Amino acid sequence: MNKFSIEERASVYRAIRERRDVRSGFLPDPLPKDLLLRLLGSAHEAPSVGLMQPWRFIVIESRTIKEKIFEDFQDASAQEYQAYAGERAQLYARLTLQGILTAPINLCVVCDCDSSRGDSLGRHTMPETALYSAVCAIQNLWLAARAEGVGLGWVSILHPEHAKVVLNIPASMALVGYFCMGFVEQFASEPELETVGWERRLSLEDVLRHETFDQAWSAVRR
Amino acid sequence: MNKFSIEERASVYRAIRERRDVRSGFLPDPLPKDLLLRLLGSAHEAPSVGLMQPWRFIVIESRTIKEKIFEDFQDASAQEYQAYAGERAQLYARLTLQGILTAPINLCVVCDCDSSRGDSLGRHTMPETALYSAVCAIQNLWLAARAEGVGLGWVSILHPEHAKVVLNIPASMALVGYFCMGFVEQFASEPELETVGWERRLSLEDVLRHETFDQAWSAVRR
Repeated sequence: MNKFSIEERASVYRAIRERRDVRSGFLPDPLPKDLLLRLLGSAHEAPSVGLMQPWRFIVIESRTIKEKIFEDFQDASAQEYQAYAGERAQLYARLTLQGILTAPINLCVVCDCDSSRGDSLGRHTMPETALYSAVCAIQNLWLAARAEGVGLGWVSILHPEHAKVVLNIPASMALVGYFCMGFVEQFASEPELETVGWERRLSLEDVLRHETFDQAWSAVRR
Repeated sequence: MNKFSIEERASVYRAIRERRDVRSGFLPDPLPKDLLLRLLGSAHEAPSVGLMQPWRFIVIESRTIKEKIFEDFQDASAQEYQAYAGERAQLYARLTLQGILTAPINLCVVCDCDSSRGDSLGRHTMPETALYSAVCAIQNLWLAARAEGVGLGWVSILHPEHAKVVLNIPASMALVGYFCMGFVEQFASEPELETVGWERRLSLEDVLRHETFDQAWSAVRR
């Protein structure tokens, strides 16, 4: 009863393999409420240090709010563009880096790192595990979304302090991630950044060692 | 072809729902190499900012290394114990907080936050997304492990600086997480911290709002 069948296992691996960071191709159709609750319910089933469940989810559908976030994305992206030159700059300019206005739903994931829930169990030497718990919730959401045909894209090109003001998030709370989300026709077969030639994927062998850290890893830069 | 069937979707949800933080009940059986590679391969398929793939995996089977980590766990846990009094302290003393020596495999996940891979794309305003990418990899691993009948437990009660010395991890690299991993007979139906009365799970409604942050959330502490 506790075991997964071969088919069940394969489905989990499929979701992991076919999940993509989706920033374009969103359909305008709204997400049914029960679907949205299933997806966020999966996020809410993530592990958390001391069972503190520090994540807070803000679902954004307001066009006004999306526009404020989008404006800040434009600023942040114009800044980031300055870091590149020549062909890289041209390539950067062609990338689709967000779908804030085209996705029917935006989602902001916040972490209450100072919560006393769980009585700080497991956080005395590694307090950052509160933030990491919220990220585990995000990855659950990403996989459930893939299984439901819903694309999710992480928008990290924005100023968290600006978004916190727009969303009334107190200074004491951490903005972990801002996302665009909606149905898509299909998922790309490989990461877009690989398709367009921005970066290539490493092999598993490149990142796996036994017993101790490999000093040669310091060279795994490009 | 791109869509998941109802059964496939249900399997993904099942893995998410039945995943547990496993710290006891490990079977001594070693993990077959191909299974271990499948699991870490799933971690390696996680999203990463700019496709930087900053995670590095160290698989630990050496008894000597495990013992050094275990000693530090004992120190860190004795320290943490001091934070509790009365019934809480008694309950803390009864908790199983790690399976370092009983799990056939320990895993350390390291993040190369300064890697130039991905050319810093998406990291100019939110550099912490490098760390978060490594956490996404961990959650992938957790779900794949559940589907394979492998238990995974996050050991956050240790001093990362100590573990870095033991594992020869350079100062510039971040130790994201240390884990115990191995086959288990079964998975608990609810989080152990809830079973023993340490903390209760929140409902999804408690952590979900629309459009903006709810100031009442500051009170979601206990």
